[in-house]
Amino acid sequence: MQAIRSYFDKLVKLNDLEFAEIVRVMKKVSLSKKEFLLNEGEVCDFVAFIEKGVFRYHHEIEGEEKVIAFFFEREFVSNYRSFLTGQPSEYYIQALEESEIWIIRKADLMRLYDKFPKIDRLGRFIAERLFLAVTARLDSFLFSSPEDRFQSLIKQNPALFERVPQYMIASFLGVTPESLSRIRTRVTGNY
Amino acid sequence: MQAIRSYFDKLVKLNDLEFAEIVRVMKKVSLSKKEFLLNEGEVCDFVAFIEKGVFRYHHEIEGEEKVIAFFFEREFVSNYRSFLTGQPSEYYIQALEESEIWIIRKADLMRLYDKFPKIDRLGRFIAERLFLAVTARLDSFLFSSPEDRFQSLIKQNPALFERVPQYMIASFLGVTPESLSRIRTRVTGNY
Repeated sequence: MQAIRSYFDKLVKLNDLEFAEIVRVMKKVSLSKKEFLLNEGEVCDFVAFIEKGVFRYHHEIEGEEKVIAFFFEREFVSNYRSFLTGQPSEYYIQALEESEIWIIRKADLMRLYDKFPKIDRLGRFIAERLFLAVTARLDSFLFSSPEDRFQSLIKQNPALFERVPQYMIASFLGVTPESLSRIRTRVTGNY
Repeated sequence: MQAIRSYFDKLVKLNDLEFAEIVRVMKKVSLSKKEFLLNEGEVCDFVAFIEKGVFRYHHEIEGEEKVIAFFFEREFVSNYRSFLTGQPSEYYIQALEESEIWIIRKADLMRLYDKFPKIDRLGRFIAERLFLAVTARLDSFLFSSPEDRFQSLIKQNPALFERVPQYMIASFLGVTPESLSRIRTRVTGNY
């Protein structure tokens, strides 16, 4: 709970009542390793704060998995596009470790937005942060080499390789596992 | 003005006072063809509603221009990342026709957010729309062929080819002008 409050506080200072109202609608859920939080074809009607664990956001094209993003502790995980539009998800969200999350349903969040302008503002800040995250990723695909993308990835998540299988990281970077090994050796001297 | 009100009304119903407060801080600016609204290296401290004209959002890497987006009438144009973060823009925003826009400065917008919760909510909706636009573009780069991207582009903007030089469209699609000609012939039967 303290982690969520700190996360919010960095964006908007909520008072105790406002925070209590959010807590009241949050539901704790535990997932085992490999369990799906969201399946392809389902509408994503939640955002979830990760207390413990790591998730991948991926889909399958012609039997091939493509990883779009990883989500870690102390951030929100959601298919925010499906959440906003009500369209079925084209992606899976899967726990890669035993995980614990706090789920907030869309209907509850909309009620809080209407009731508390500061929570509405919190929603604006979260949307803005997501916008920045996805533009950074678009830029990295348009303008960076796989090696640059690798370097910024390990800078953000130094423990990534200990928690996520290497073939998923390769998929995320858009390279083959063999290329990733070569890049990794070149950049870090490790293998 | 009516175009702006309609645009806002589709997102949040503002009352006359709230709309008047926005109008009060908007400044009309005319740009000639090829004039820059934003230069690389400048901080983008505005959002601008396009009343007339078309803009491109692009940058230069080693002397080569790369077009990221086009902006048309009845939408907002901005480097929203630079606007949010206060970091200098890595992009240019350039008018491709004689254009007329309404500029809102960041400092004014922040004051309105503080004063009017419904305008703050409007800001959330705009951030959410931008998030959806950029995720769609990221998906199109990760998963669509240039031909699919071409088709969705002309579906969104049937008059695009009459207003924007073909080499810029090719740059936006990530193909050579020659490939674009071939795709265009194949898809539309035109050349």
